[in-house]
Amino acid sequence: MVDLPAPGSDGADGVLPPLSSDDDPTIGEAGEGRVLRTILARTPAGAFSLLGPGDDAAVIATPSGSVVATTDTLVEGPDFRSAWSSGYDLGWKSAAVNLADVAAMGARPTALLVALAVPRDRRLSFVSALSDGFRDACAALAPGCAVVGGDLTVSATLTVAVTALGDLEGRRAVTRAGARIGDDVAIAGETGLAGLGLSVLFRRFHPGTAAVPVDPSVLAEGESEAIEAQLRPAPPVGLGVVAAVAGATAMMDVSDGLALDAGRLAGASGVTLALDAETLGADPGRALAGGEDHALLATFPAGVLPPGFRRIGTVVQAVEGAPVLCDGDPVGPRGWDPYRDAGADA
Amino acid sequence: MVDLPAPGSDGADGVLPPLSSDDDPTIGEAGEGRVLRTILARTPAGAFSLLGPGDDAAVIATPSGSVVATTDTLVEGPDFRSAWSSGYDLGWKSAAVNLADVAAMGARPTALLVALAVPRDRRLSFVSALSDGFRDACAALAPGCAVVGGDLTVSATLTVAVTALGDLEGRRAVTRAGARIGDDVAIAGETGLAGLGLSVLFRRFHPGTAAVPVDPSVLAEGESEAIEAQLRPAPPVGLGVVAAVAGATAMMDVSDGLALDAGRLAGASGVTLALDAETLGADPGRALAGGEDHALLATFPAGVLPPGFRRIGTVVQAVEGAPVLCDGDPVGPRGWDPYRDAGADA
Repeated sequence: MVDLPAPGSDGADGVLPPLSSDDDPTIGEAGEGRVLRTILARTPAGAFSLLGPGDDAAVIATPSGSVVATTDTLVEGPDFRSAWSSGYDLGWKSAAVNLADVAAMGARPTALLVALAVPRDRRLSFVSALSDGFRDACAALAPGCAVVGGDLTVSATLTVAVTALGDLEGRRAVTRAGARIGDDVAIAGETGLAGLGLSVLFRRFHPGTAAVPVDPSVLAEGESEAIEAQLRPAPPVGLGVVAAVAGATAMMDVSDGLALDAGRLAGASGVTLALDAETLGADPGRALAGGEDHALLATFPAGVLPPGFRRIGTVVQAVEGAPVLCDGDPVGPRGWDPYRDAGADA
Repeated sequence: MVDLPAPGSDGADGVLPPLSSDDDPTIGEAGEGRVLRTILARTPAGAFSLLGPGDDAAVIATPSGSVVATTDTLVEGPDFRSAWSSGYDLGWKSAAVNLADVAAMGARPTALLVALAVPRDRRLSFVSALSDGFRDACAALAPGCAVVGGDLTVSATLTVAVTALGDLEGRRAVTRAGARIGDDVAIAGETGLAGLGLSVLFRRFHPGTAAVPVDPSVLAEGESEAIEAQLRPAPPVGLGVVAAVAGATAMMDVSDGLALDAGRLAGASGVTLALDAETLGADPGRALAGGEDHALLATFPAGVLPPGFRRIGTVVQAVEGAPVLCDGDPVGPRGWDPYRDAGADA
């Protein structure tokens, strides 16, 4: 475990690690100091950072007297394949999934902390690309948010554990528990595209027991977009605050599938969500099963839907055993339990 | 990736995972719902938790308008051996090392977020014990602080990534950069005991290429205490606030060895720390090399040392190439670079 030292510092010793003759050394060859300098060169200060990397901890402004905090981890195997995901993809996605959780509380993301466990034989360029992915995802999805701290360690299993912080700007958090009968059910962002991308990846680039790199030349129309949605999801992070300001009564991000997550929101609120299949696109089944797009699912008092959200149903009285209906029929959970189903390679 | 659901909830489906006939199923057999219930039953609410586990993110009170945040990861192999560390030890240590980082800023720890990546064949009792370790470490080291959120995933490599948050209570953060010439150098907590414990573990319980369980019956006097300091360190977390209130000019926790970390503080402050060997206990070499006790190293204006800190030297003008002196002689860094040296098993 190592706290990030100040930018440009190599620790007290001032001794640079031996440079490999290779321009792109492994992590083990580069040593901690060079790995950290590589990351920090790609880590701009955020708008909320009162104290950034370089000390025992970061200090982040929390103007409204509370902080929203969430953590999500990507592990090689269950969560991604290195044959499919570049370092950039992985940095982007690790940021995006956490930013979506902050957004789903109605908060504005302010800071990320990144705990990175990397196999010793990974190249330094992988860490560079990962850092670029974090930076670009913050800039694109949550301007003002930045990586404020982190931790580096070696591991046999590439693991990226991110904590995201956010500010409620004086509003109450929008939880999963506030949906009221008569509210509109609405969604912002994609549902099902990332899931389609995953199925394309498995179908086309997983011939035996292991993933192989993506060959764009063999992809049919729309498949590139779906793969991109899986590897670099772009959740509508800015719409979390928009929803909160508009009076969203409940909200969550869709990470485990719309059917399962809608059921969770319904359960927390003690209601049933009655969805309209015709609002779920050309393939409602795919939309209900898909989760990794990290769309924002929210409920609003009837008639106040803010821009960016589309209505997909109505909140109704709880139906025993049927937290989610689609065109009146109960929808079974089509979720994903990482402890039982994770990873086709497992 | 799964956000912790509300206590007692098993998600929308309400379907319990199939129970193993075994009282202590593996994580894979237990399924996510039961693993989460096991953890949450051991996760009391904290004094600062405005919203705890069960939503996309937690909400933590930050009365002073900023939040201190840090992350540190324990990975099986480089950071611990399962033959030596129980689940309880691992939960305790994961909490303790992060609480120490918050304390080292002069802040009061308010919340932990835990990202847990567990091999599928681990027993549920391991997760129970881990949760107990988190709870007890918070209660013992940082009353009022609690686990407010987390993430669960499967991984081939057992990994515990913790983020700790803290509140400065209106004070400025105590960084590494404020030591002034003439200040006293002081320390609170153990230095070298955890390092001794690690050497005992390797010498006695690592006969070939792998660790074996600790057999207390073969330990000499003092060795049990040293092993306990390595596996369940008890940094003086509460003294971080005490130091800040007393006017500490710089502070950090000693995680990579006193010599190396003192050099970091010296470098950040642009000074040299002149230590007195006679203040470093019976074995100054061990004290200078030891790090994993997570002692608090701080500098204070001469004469204001608060209770719990002992003086170990003086801040002097920077000596080129010698950030740390001991009895006037330069002290080389005896640090630890996880990217090059991690793990005797590696």
